Amino acid sequence: MSDTTALEIPEGFRAAGVKAGIKPSGLPDLAVIVADSTCSAAGTFTTNRIAAAPVQWDRAIVPSEAIRAIVINAGNANAATGAQGFENAKRTAEVAAERLGCLPEHVLIASTGVIGHQLPMDRVEAGVIRAIDAASADASGFHDASKAIMTTDTRPKIVSMRRKTETGKTVRLLGLAKGAAMIGPRMATMLGFLITDARVQMGALSGILHEVVDETFNCISVEGHTSTNDSVLMLSGSRGELPLMGADLKMFAGMVRETCETLARMIPDDGEGATHLITIEVNGCRDREQATQIARAVADSPLVKTAIHGADPNWGRIVSAAGYAGVMFDESELSLELDGVPLYRDGVPLDYDSEAVSDRMKANREVRITLSLKQGDASARFWTCDLTAEYIRLNADYTT
Amino acid sequence: MSDTTALEIPEGFRAAGVKAGIKPSGLPDLAVIVADSTCSAAGTFTTNRIAAAPVQWDRAIVPSEAIRAIVINAGNANAATGAQGFENAKRTAEVAAERLGCLPEHVLIASTGVIGHQLPMDRVEAGVIRAIDAASADASGFHDASKAIMTTDTRPKIVSMRRKTETGKTVRLLGLAKGAAMIGPRMATMLGFLITDARVQMGALSGILHEVVDETFNCISVEGHTSTNDSVLMLSGSRGELPLMGADLKMFAGMVRETCETLARMIPDDGEGATHLITIEVNGCRDREQATQIARAVADSPLVKTAIHGADPNWGRIVSAAGYAGVMFDESELSLELDGVPLYRDGVPLDYDSEAVSDRMKANREVRITLSLKQGDASARFWTCDLTAEYIRLNADYTT
Repeated sequence: MSDTTALEIPEGFRAAGVKAGIKPSGLPDLAVIVADSTCSAAGTFTTNRIAAAPVQWDRAIVPSEAIRAIVINAGNANAATGAQGFENAKRTAEVAAERLGCLPEHVLIASTGVIGHQLPMDRVEAGVIRAIDAASADASGFHDASKAIMTTDTRPKIVSMRRKTETGKTVRLLGLAKGAAMIGPRMATMLGFLITDARVQMGALSGILHEVVDETFNCISVEGHTSTNDSVLMLSGSRGELPLMGADLKMFAGMVRETCETLARMIPDDGEGATHLITIEVNGCRDREQATQIARAVADSPLVKTAIHGADPNWGRIVSAAGYAGVMFDESELSLELDGVPLYRDGVPLDYDSEAVSDRMKANREVRITLSLKQGDASARFWTCDLTAEYIRLNADYTT
Repeated sequence: MSDTTALEIPEGFRAAGVKAGIKPSGLPDLAVIVADSTCSAAGTFTTNRIAAAPVQWDRAIVPSEAIRAIVINAGNANAATGAQGFENAKRTAEVAAERLGCLPEHVLIASTGVIGHQLPMDRVEAGVIRAIDAASADASGFHDASKAIMTTDTRPKIVSMRRKTETGKTVRLLGLAKGAAMIGPRMATMLGFLITDARVQMGALSGILHEVVDETFNCISVEGHTSTNDSVLMLSGSRGELPLMGADLKMFAGMVRETCETLARMIPDDGEGATHLITIEVNGCRDREQATQIARAVADSPLVKTAIHGADPNWGRIVSAAGYAGVMFDESELSLELDGVPLYRDGVPLDYDSEAVSDRMKANREVRITLSLKQGDASARFWTCDLTAEYIRLNADYTT
């Protein structure tokens, strides 16, 4: 996985990020990703019953073999905005399509920001045209795009990689994402975008994306509040080439998994006010769903998150969160390790050096919680962050 | 509902609270409620798979017609303590039974405090004997008991009332409870105790308690973390009298409901760090369960709780929490009022004076959220508190 200073830009894509004037701060707030020719596209979206207008627009379109662009704005979620909100999303696609010479349904849209306000369409329309005209195949265009989609993120989230197929063709995959709160995805996550110059048919692309998202973006949380705007979109270019198959398709799926996992971890790591990235592993379950259920209950417990913020190995909070996750198990089947130190085995508390464990938590940004049952071979991983006074400060006063 | 300065003590009950030395602070930490003759008893308990030893003990006993006492300790939850923890709970009941001249299974137990530590049994045993010997039928005994069961509560929670049956008998009901975190009861709540000198058979007592708890203690949360120790126990004395029936039993059920609702609201009102008590009403649902599901999702969202702490009418957080509650509905069916001001109607944002709404939230401790669907007549109420930096401070450092 290359770092952001040496981006691998997939062939045939351009990007830009501009200041459209949607954010009151005046920071960049509108990004485009443009493909030179039509792409196959897949997407996964929020399961929130209040789905944002851009989510409603995209859902009706993907999977598709004819996508030319993604338009993303920050500063306004265009969610809970009724019929006018949907008209505004559609109008955004129309303006981009006109500039690109394609149909509106060849343009995907994503929005993030405050809920319940109508988009300032004059600024959005002007911004879309400026961004399309500025779109560049250089790394700078993609860095600008990754900054323009930020809300309370403290840093942009962009990764890329390059691999060779069996026939020697170079395949590049680039992904960008944003956090940093209202993160508790149940079928998708906040905004994530992946583009590749590997030629993958929309059915295969969609299958890979759904499987990977379920084990990466769907396994993170900041505070567990599922957003109205969660969307992960993936575009595959190189139209005209033969689609990847067999071992090459498998390699590509591995690239998608690595990219999504890296981006997904970046979101709680940059969660609002976070001082620790917490990885929760649950092993020995009957199925993956049960393991995920336990991991999510631990991840979403404010008592667990504040204990870790305080570098307090208060493991009773962890096992009690597992206990209310809705999975049937007996106390005597449960064991717990914190950063590799066994604290609780088969339902019995163990002696351990709590000061040493606390010191290690203070010294390291990452904390690993491992819970084990004895019911089977299934396991799951989940990533979250600690809960701090800074999270409260940021959220006690965000719209007004 | 009388205030705590003029307690109505049910006839035939005594209580005490003493300093047993379980809490490091040296504050009172052991309470007893003693009945002069055997009582019918009902209980509801946590659904956490890691149930505390005292919960395991009580569950095997209630409902019962032969209860003589409840022993409650704070400072140690006796949860996740394995076989030794259960032995310690049993030993506590044995010591009390010996002093009272009854069987151990005539004694109920409750514990609250830190998870995963064994009880200091020498101190517990001495404390039980001292408390039983000190138990008094005066109000002071019950006030002392209500203080000895506190953990991070800032104030004791005790209420009482008196009514007359149709035949002119006076019926008294007294209840006590404690909070103040790890509050997200799913079948019971933290500790609640009710005693009455109305004679009610254990079957009727149990029926009333379960029905009432489901709409009171089960409809509160502080941070949604379901405890290992949640227990509500109710004792009915006046052995030898005819049990209440018909209109009298109905009147008694009303007393239980009023008492439980008052105690239940006191818990989030005194939630750790709370500056607002939030009441969430959900109307127009197909059934009560769906209404409760939506109310709980809103109550447990850190984004909603921090917005209210900041007196920010950021209603998008409220409707989006309703959207991920797992209840099927269409955006166009949903409306929202905040403190009686309509903000969102039938899926469309309304114009409103956000400064006036914010000023009212700043001025009042209580905030009322009203969500309405158009699917039926069922409704639910839920009580929670806001999330503040003080909650973080209290919980980033509680055991160590």
